[in-house]
Amino acid sequence: MALRTAAEFLAGLRDGREVYYRGERVPNVVDHAELGVAARHAAIDFELAENPKYRDLAVHRDGSDTYSAYFRLPRNTQDLLARSKLIEAGTAEGATLVLLIKEIGTDALFALKRVLTRAGDALGTQRLEAFYRRCRDNDLAMAVAQTDAKGDRSKRPSEQSDPDLYVRVTEKRADGIVVRGAKIHTSCTPYVDEVIVLPSRSMAPGDEPWSLAFAVPVATPGLRLYASDYLHGIDDPFTRPVSTNHKMVETLTVFDNVFVPWERVFFIDRPDLAGATALTFVEFHRFTAVSYKLPLLDALVGAGIAVAKANGIERAGHVRDKLTWLGGYAETVRGLTELAALRCKVEDGVARPDVFTTNLAKWTFARDFHRAMETVQDLAGGLLVTGPGGKDWNSSAVRPVLEKYLPGAWPAERRMAIINLISDLTTRLYGGYQAVLAVHAEGSIEAEKMAMYRAYDASRAVSLAMRLAGLEAAAANK
Amino acid sequence: MALRTAAEFLAGLRDGREVYYRGERVPNVVDHAELGVAARHAAIDFELAENPKYRDLAVHRDGSDTYSAYFRLPRNTQDLLARSKLIEAGTAEGATLVLLIKEIGTDALFALKRVLTRAGDALGTQRLEAFYRRCRDNDLAMAVAQTDAKGDRSKRPSEQSDPDLYVRVTEKRADGIVVRGAKIHTSCTPYVDEVIVLPSRSMAPGDEPWSLAFAVPVATPGLRLYASDYLHGIDDPFTRPVSTNHKMVETLTVFDNVFVPWERVFFIDRPDLAGATALTFVEFHRFTAVSYKLPLLDALVGAGIAVAKANGIERAGHVRDKLTWLGGYAETVRGLTELAALRCKVEDGVARPDVFTTNLAKWTFARDFHRAMETVQDLAGGLLVTGPGGKDWNSSAVRPVLEKYLPGAWPAERRMAIINLISDLTTRLYGGYQAVLAVHAEGSIEAEKMAMYRAYDASRAVSLAMRLAGLEAAAANK
Amino acid sequence: MALRTAAEFLAGLRDGREVYYRGERVPNVVDHAELGVAARHAAIDFELAENPKYRDLAVHRDGSDTYSAYFRLPRNTQDLLARSKLIEAGTAEGATLVLLIKEIGTDALFALKRVLTRAGDALGTQRLEAFYRRCRDNDLAMAVAQTDAKGDRSKRPSEQSDPDLYVRVTEKRADGIVVRGAKIHTSCTPYVDEVIVLPSRSMAPGDEPWSLAFAVPVATPGLRLYASDYLHGIDDPFTRPVSTNHKMVETLTVFDNVFVPWERVFFIDRPDLAGATALTFVEFHRFTAVSYKLPLLDALVGAGIAVAKANGIERAGHVRDKLTWLGGYAETVRGLTELAALRCKVEDGVARPDVFTTNLAKWTFARDFHRAMETVQDLAGGLLVTGPGGKDWNSSAVRPVLEKYLPGAWPAERRMAIINLISDLTTRLYGGYQAVLAVHAEGSIEAEKMAMYRAYDASRAVSLAMRLAGLEAAAANK
Amino acid sequence: MALRTAAEFLAGLRDGREVYYRGERVPNVVDHAELGVAARHAAIDFELAENPKYRDLAVHRDGSDTYSAYFRLPRNTQDLLARSKLIEAGTAEGATLVLLIKEIGTDALFALKRVLTRAGDALGTQRLEAFYRRCRDNDLAMAVAQTDAKGDRSKRPSEQSDPDLYVRVTEKRADGIVVRGAKIHTSCTPYVDEVIVLPSRSMAPGDEPWSLAFAVPVATPGLRLYASDYLHGIDDPFTRPVSTNHKMVETLTVFDNVFVPWERVFFIDRPDLAGATALTFVEFHRFTAVSYKLPLLDALVGAGIAVAKANGIERAGHVRDKLTWLGGYAETVRGLTELAALRCKVEDGVARPDVFTTNLAKWTFARDFHRAMETVQDLAGGLLVTGPGGKDWNSSAVRPVLEKYLPGAWPAERRMAIINLISDLTTRLYGGYQAVLAVHAEGSIEAEKMAMYRAYDASRAVSLAMRLAGLEAAAANK
Repeated sequence: MALRTAAEFLAGLRDGREVYYRGERVPNVVDHAELGVAARHAAIDFELAENPKYRDLAVHRDGSDTYSAYFRLPRNTQDLLARSKLIEAGTAEGATLVLLIKEIGTDALFALKRVLTRAGDALGTQRLEAFYRRCRDNDLAMAVAQTDAKGDRSKRPSEQSDPDLYVRVTEKRADGIVVRGAKIHTSCTPYVDEVIVLPSRSMAPGDEPWSLAFAVPVATPGLRLYASDYLHGIDDPFTRPVSTNHKMVETLTVFDNVFVPWERVFFIDRPDLAGATALTFVEFHRFTAVSYKLPLLDALVGAGIAVAKANGIERAGHVRDKLTWLGGYAETVRGLTELAALRCKVEDGVARPDVFTTNLAKWTFARDFHRAMETVQDLAGGLLVTGPGGKDWNSSAVRPVLEKYLPGAWPAERRMAIINLISDLTTRLYGGYQAVLAVHAEGSIEAEKMAMYRAYDASRAVSLAMRLAGLEAAAANK
Repeated sequence: MALRTAAEFLAGLRDGREVYYRGERVPNVVDHAELGVAARHAAIDFELAENPKYRDLAVHRDGSDTYSAYFRLPRNTQDLLARSKLIEAGTAEGATLVLLIKEIGTDALFALKRVLTRAGDALGTQRLEAFYRRCRDNDLAMAVAQTDAKGDRSKRPSEQSDPDLYVRVTEKRADGIVVRGAKIHTSCTPYVDEVIVLPSRSMAPGDEPWSLAFAVPVATPGLRLYASDYLHGIDDPFTRPVSTNHKMVETLTVFDNVFVPWERVFFIDRPDLAGATALTFVEFHRFTAVSYKLPLLDALVGAGIAVAKANGIERAGHVRDKLTWLGGYAETVRGLTELAALRCKVEDGVARPDVFTTNLAKWTFARDFHRAMETVQDLAGGLLVTGPGGKDWNSSAVRPVLEKYLPGAWPAERRMAIINLISDLTTRLYGGYQAVLAVHAEGSIEAEKMAMYRAYDASRAVSLAMRLAGLEAAAANK
Repeated sequence: MALRTAAEFLAGLRDGREVYYRGERVPNVVDHAELGVAARHAAIDFELAENPKYRDLAVHRDGSDTYSAYFRLPRNTQDLLARSKLIEAGTAEGATLVLLIKEIGTDALFALKRVLTRAGDALGTQRLEAFYRRCRDNDLAMAVAQTDAKGDRSKRPSEQSDPDLYVRVTEKRADGIVVRGAKIHTSCTPYVDEVIVLPSRSMAPGDEPWSLAFAVPVATPGLRLYASDYLHGIDDPFTRPVSTNHKMVETLTVFDNVFVPWERVFFIDRPDLAGATALTFVEFHRFTAVSYKLPLLDALVGAGIAVAKANGIERAGHVRDKLTWLGGYAETVRGLTELAALRCKVEDGVARPDVFTTNLAKWTFARDFHRAMETVQDLAGGLLVTGPGGKDWNSSAVRPVLEKYLPGAWPAERRMAIINLISDLTTRLYGGYQAVLAVHAEGSIEAEKMAMYRAYDASRAVSLAMRLAGLEAAAANK
Repeated sequence: MALRTAAEFLAGLRDGREVYYRGERVPNVVDHAELGVAARHAAIDFELAENPKYRDLAVHRDGSDTYSAYFRLPRNTQDLLARSKLIEAGTAEGATLVLLIKEIGTDALFALKRVLTRAGDALGTQRLEAFYRRCRDNDLAMAVAQTDAKGDRSKRPSEQSDPDLYVRVTEKRADGIVVRGAKIHTSCTPYVDEVIVLPSRSMAPGDEPWSLAFAVPVATPGLRLYASDYLHGIDDPFTRPVSTNHKMVETLTVFDNVFVPWERVFFIDRPDLAGATALTFVEFHRFTAVSYKLPLLDALVGAGIAVAKANGIERAGHVRDKLTWLGGYAETVRGLTELAALRCKVEDGVARPDVFTTNLAKWTFARDFHRAMETVQDLAGGLLVTGPGGKDWNSSAVRPVLEKYLPGAWPAERRMAIINLISDLTTRLYGGYQAVLAVHAEGSIEAEKMAMYRAYDASRAVSLAMRLAGLEAAAANK
C-alpha cells in the first residue's frame, strides 16, 4: 500500500488526538464544523493522486514502487521542477491555499537526511530512513513543528525565564526520551498523522537539551494541540468564495512530558546540528513556499484583469499601468522560482534549489505582496467593503434591487462574484492571513535578506570592480 | 435647543425608517444587534459635547448661539485647525473609526453654500440656509449620498442602459419633485436624521435630469437603505478590541420615487453646478478625511513601538528603521494636514483648506497605508493570525497554557493584547475596511493625483527653470 | 576572409566619411583625440576574437565557415545564451561600456529576416541575405539608425511641419532611391562600416514615403554624421578609470539626398512592415540590452562591497541591507535575462527571446538603476565629489598629504581608487550617460511596460480567478 | 561698517592664503580660472544685500544696527521663516547652488552659543560673543570645518593609527593652542574670511585632545587648503547653463601645527560638549539645508513641465502622473520646511527649528532625489546625452542642421535650452554633485533617520495604542 484515498486519510484522523478549539476539547476533528473544513481541504492532496489530470504529477512510479510524488527525493532540476509544479497544482486546486500536509514534511525529511549524512551519523540516518519509509509507504500526512514559543527574542534558550519556551529533553530513558515545551505556528497539526519536530535556530555548547530532532504521531499522550480560530467560518460563500471551503489551522503545539521512543529520535544533544538543520530545512521549504505562492499571485492578477473589465475601466492608462506591474511582479516570482530549480546544487545525490535564487524569489514575493493587494483593491473599488452579503443576494426582496443597481460593464451577479473574490483574497480574514504569511511564513523578510547576503557569490562582481579600479593585484577582502 | 444628548439622538432614530440588513427589514436600528453598535459608535459624537475634556472643542458658543462646533462655518485658519482637531478627537474617542455623522454633512453644506453663492442663486442659497439652520439648531446627524451606482464607468449618465443608475428627477410637481435611482457607499445612513444628496460628477448639457442637489429625512417614504454587513460582529473583544464596539455601516441608498418638497431642493436642472459641487465638496471632505486618518496612523505607530518592546526586538537596527519610517509617514500626513489649514483660501468669508496641500496630504496617506500595515505586521509576528481567541483566553483549562507559552519581553496577557490590537487594525475585517478606505474613500488615489495636478501652481517652478535655461523672455506655455 | 583584426578594422575607417565634431569636420576619426578613443574601444570587439580566453565564445566555426559569432543566427536557447554571454563578455572587457558594433547590427538583420520571411517578400529576403553575407564574410561593423528626429512627438510623420523629420524617400530611380531626413541617437556611426536604417514606429496608409529599410556604407555621399561631444575626454584616469579609455559616440545622422542602390533597399512603401520591423528589432535588441547591462550592474555591486570595506563600515546593519538589495537587484536582472533565452520561441528556424521576459528584465533593470546608483553613492561617501584629482595625486607636494589623511580601513591609494571608480560610474559624465541610457536606450520604460502589457499571457491567471469566483462558464472577456 | 560690497569681499580674499589646486599652489583665488568662478558665485551673497528686490530680506536693521540678516539670531518662527526665505532666495539667485558663506557659519555660531550657554561656560560664551560680533560687524564670510578625515570609520579618534585623523590639540601655550590634523568636505574655504572648526562627533573621556572648537582666519600660517577640482570648468554655457558660472569648492583642510590664540578658542578638553555641539549644529544646519534645496527642486519640477511641453508630450497620462509626483515631492519638502519653523522651540531666547520636522524634511528630500532626477530625465529624452555641444551650436555650418532636425513642439533652440538645463542639473558633473550632496551633505540619510528616531515624541501614539489595547494602566516602556 502506498496511496491512500481522501476517505482513508480522514478516517485515520479519528484516533483520540488531543485538540482544543475555542477553549474546548474537540472530540473529533473530522466532524468538527471548523476543523473539518480544514481537514477536507487537506484531503484534496489525496484526491489529486486519483485525478487523471494530475496523476502523473502526483504519483511517483518507479518499477514496483508507487508512492506520493512528494516523497520523491529530488535528484536533479527536473525533479525539483516537478515538485514545484505539484505544489503549485495542489495549491491551485486548493483555491490559492496550500495543502501542506506532505510538502513541509518532506522538506524536513530531505533536510534531515542531508544533515545526518554530512555529519556521518549512521544511527540517525538509519532511524530517519526507517521513518521516511514508514511515512512514504503508508502515505502519511505530516506536520513540522519548528518555531519555538521563544519568549524574549533577545535571549537564548538557556537564558529564558522558563526553560520550556524552547522544546527540550527532560529525561533520557532506556527506551526513549521525554520532551517538554511548546512550538507555535505549527500548520495542519490537528489533521495530519505525524509531527516532525526540528530545532528553530542555531545552538551552542550549553544548549544540548534543546538540540534535538524527532517525530511523534499526533495521537501521542501528552501532545496537546491548541488550534487557532483565526480562519473560523461564517458560511457565506457569496462574499467568501475561497475561504468558506478552504482553511488551514495552526496550533500552539504543547509537549507535556511526551515520551518519544529512540527509533523516532533523529538526533539529540547536538548543538552542532541544530543550526544546520534549521538552515537546510528552509532551503527546501522556501522553495516550497515560492511554489505555493504562485496560484495566489495568479489569482490576484487574474482578478485584477477581470474586475477592470467588470467595472469598464480596462482601457484607462493608469489601469494598464497597474495591471502591467501586477503581471510583472507575479512573473518575476515565477521566473525566479523556476531558476532556483535550474540552478540547483546536487550533493550526495540530492538536489537542493539554489539558496540565493530561492531567497531572492521569496524576498521578491514578500516585499511587494501588500502592494499587490492594494493594487487589486484599487482596481476593484469600494464595494469590496460596502457591498451586500449572501443573505441579501439570496433574498427575493433584495436581490432585484442589487441586480438593478450593481452592474458595471458586467451584470451585477458576475461583477459581484469577482469583487467578492477580491474581497475574500484581500480584505477579510483570509486576506489578512495571506498578508501576514507573506511577511512571516517560512521565515521573515529579514531572514530572507540575511540568507541572500550569506549566499551571494560576490567573486565575479568584486573582481570586476577591482579590475576596473586598477586594483587587480589587491584582494578586495584584505 | 441646539445640543442633543446621545440618548436623544438614539431616540430620534426610532422613526420607521426603511432599513434592510442581511435580506430582512430591520424593525429598529437602535435595538438591532449589529446596527445598534454602529448607532452607539456614532453617538460618541454627542458624548464629546458633554465631556469636559472636549467641550470647548466640540461646542460652539457665540453670544446666545450654542451649537455643535461642526456647524461652525470656517472663516480662517484657526477655525479650520479647530475643526480638524475636533474630527481627530472624535475619531480617537471612536478608537480610530471616524464618527462621521456631522463631519461629512457640514462638508456638503459648506460646499453647497459656496457653489450657490458664486452662482448667484438666491433661491437656492435661501433654501440651503434654512436647511442648515434646521440641522444646526436641532443638532441633527446627516449622511451624504454622493457616489451614484454608476453602472459602466466608461459611460455618462445618459448613456447608461438604465437611467436610474444615477439619481435623477422623474417628475416635477407644484409642491416638489420626485426622484429615482440609487447611490452607493453612503456612510451612516441607517442612523442619521437627514440625507443630503449631491451629484457625483461633472455634468454637461443633456444631463439635466441628473443635475440636482437636495436633502430628505431618512424616514421619507420610498427611501430604502440596504445596509452592508461587512463589519458584522463576532463578539470577541479579545481579538477585536477595536471593532467589537466600533462600526460604521454603508448603504446602497435607493430612491424609489421619493418625493422632495421644493424647500429641500437646493438646485435642479443645473449641469453647470454639478461638477463644481462635487469638486467643492471634496475640497472640504478630503480635509475632513486627512484629519480623521490621524488617530489610525497614531495607533499603528504606537502599536508598532509597543509590540517591538513586547517582543523584545526594539533594539534591532531593522526595527528602528521600520519605526522611523512609520513615524515619518504618520507625521508627514499630520504636518501636511496642518499646512492645508494654514494655507487656506478665504473667499466670500469662507475659509477653504488649500486644495493642493489637502490632496497632497491625502495622497501621502493613501499611497503608503498598505506599507504601514505591512510594517506593523512585520514587527508583530505570526501570532497575528495563528494566536488564540477570546474563548481560549477565557477557558480556565487553556489560559494557563497560553500564559506559560506566549510571553515575550512582556507577559503573555499584555503581549497578546497589543498583538490582537494589531490583528484587528490590519488583518481582520476592520483592517481590510481601513485598507480599502485608504484607496477609495473621499475619492481614489487617481482622483487625488488629478486634483493635485490641477491645483499645482507651476509659476514659480517654471519661471525659475526658464530663467536658468536662458529663456526668460519666452513663456513656458507657448 | 571572415575575421579581421582590430588594426584592419581601424584602417577600414579611413575612408573619407563625413563626420563633424564640435562644429568642425573631422579629417579622420581614428586619429582624432576623442573619436579615436571610441574607435579603439569598439575595436575591442576584434581583439576578443583573437583572445584565447574568449575565442570559443567570439568565433563561430561551422565546417569551413568561420565568422564572428555575433552573426550566428540563433536557432535555440543555447545560441541565445551564447550570444548573451558574448555580449556580456565584450562589455566586461569594455569596462562596462558595450562595444555595440555588431550586436545591434545583427539584431537588425535578424529582425528584418523574420519580417521579410513572414511577409513572403522574396526579393527583400534575397537582398537582405546578400547584405548579411557581405557583412558577415567581411567581418563588418554596423550601426543601426532607427530613432527619427521626430519633431513634435504628438504628431505622425506626415503631420510634421517638415517632412524630413522622419527619414523618407524623395526619389525613385532605375538604379535605386534617394533618401532624405535625419535619425538621432545613432550609436557608433563614426566608426563602423555600414549603417542599417530601420523605421522607428508603426506606419499607416499615407505614410508610404517613410516606410522603408535599407543600408549604406558610412562613407556614402550625402551621409553626414554630427557627433555628440557628451563623453569628451579630460585625461584623468585617476578620477575616471573607466571613461578615460572607453567611450561611445552617438550621432545626429543626416541623409542629405543620399542615393541607395536597389540591392541595399530591403523594403520600401510598406507601411504594413514598418511597425513589425520596429517591434521585432526591439525584441532582439532588448535582449542584447539586458545582456550588456550585466557588467555594469556587477561593477556597481562589486564597487559597493569594496567601498564598504575600504571605509570600514561593512558590518553595519544598514550597509548589509543595502548590499543585499544591490545584489538582489543585479541578480534579478541576470536571472530574467537567462530565462528570456530559456523561454525562447523558435519560428521559421529562428529563436527569439521570450518577449515578456525580455521586457520584464529590461524594466526591472531600468526602474531601479537610479536607486542602485544612489545606494553605491551612499556607501562611498562625500569624497566622490570633494576628493582630489589626478594632478593632486601626482604632485609630490600634495600626495603625501592625501596619503596621510585619506585612508579608511584601506590605505588612501586603494580607497581612492575604488571611490573614483564609483565617481566615474555614477557622478560624472559617464554616470549620467548610463543613467539616461537606463531610462531611454532600447526604448523608454513606458515602451517596455507597453510591450509587457501586450505580451502577457493572461489565460492562466484569468482562468483561475474566474474559476475561484464561480464563473467558470463565463469568459472573462465578455 | 556692517555691509560689504561684493568687490570688497573679493578684495579681502587677496591675503596670501595657502590654497592648492590640481597639485599647485594658487597665487590668488580671485584671479584663478576655476576658483574665481566659485568666489564670484559666493559674492552673490553681497549683491543680494544691494538688490532692492532682496534688501529687506538680506539686511537686518534694528535701530542703529545694520548687518547681514544671516547674523540675526532667530528668536521666533518669523525669524526662522525669514532666514529660510533668505537662504532660498540666495540659492535661487545662485541658480540652484547655495551660496553658503554665511549660512553655515551662523548655524555654527548659533549652535555654539546655545551649547556654551547651557553649559554655563561664561568664558567660552564671552569669546564666542566677541567673535560673533567681529564677523557680523565686518560682514565676514565663514566656512565651517566639521567632518574630520576620520580614517577607519569603525574606530574612535584615539584608536586611529594616526592621531591626526581627527583635528586635535598638540600643545597648550600661554597665548593659545597649537592644533594639528585635517578636516574634509569643507565647503567654500578658499574664498571665505574665517574658518570655524567644530567637532564632528560625540566624544568620551579619553578623547580630550580632540574635543575642541575654535576659529581662525583662512590666511593663518600652517592652514593649508587642498581644493577639489570636481566642478572644474569647461566653458560651454550651451550645455551647462548653470554650472559654467556657478561653482562651489570643497577642501581637504589641513592644520599643520596651526596656532590659535585663546580668544578664538571656544572650548577645549570638553568631551562632554563635543556631541552636543555636533548635534546642535546640525539642528540649525539641516534647516539651512532644506531651505537651500527648494530652488533645486523647483528647477527640476519647472524643467520637467517645460520639457514635456517642448517635446509635445504633456497630455500623456504617464507624463501627468510623473509631473504630479514631482510636484508633490517638491511641495512636501517645502511644506515640512515651513512647518519646522512653525514648530520651533524657543529656549534661552533662541528659536531652534523643530528637530523631528527638520529631519523629516531632509529625509523626504534625500530619499527621493535620485527618483526626481530619473523622472526629469525620463521626460526629457535621450538628447540629454546624445545632443550637440556649444561649438556645434555656434558653428554656422552645423547650426542650421540642428535647427532643422532638433525641434519638438518647441523650436530647436528653445527645446535644446531646456534639455541642456536638465542635462546640467542631472547628468553631468553638477548633477552628480547634487546627487551626492543629497545623500551625504549635512549628514547622511542614516544620520537623518537616527535623528528622527531620537526626536520622535511617541507619547501620543503609544498612549492611544495602549488605550485601544486595554492597557491604559500599563506603561508601554515597562
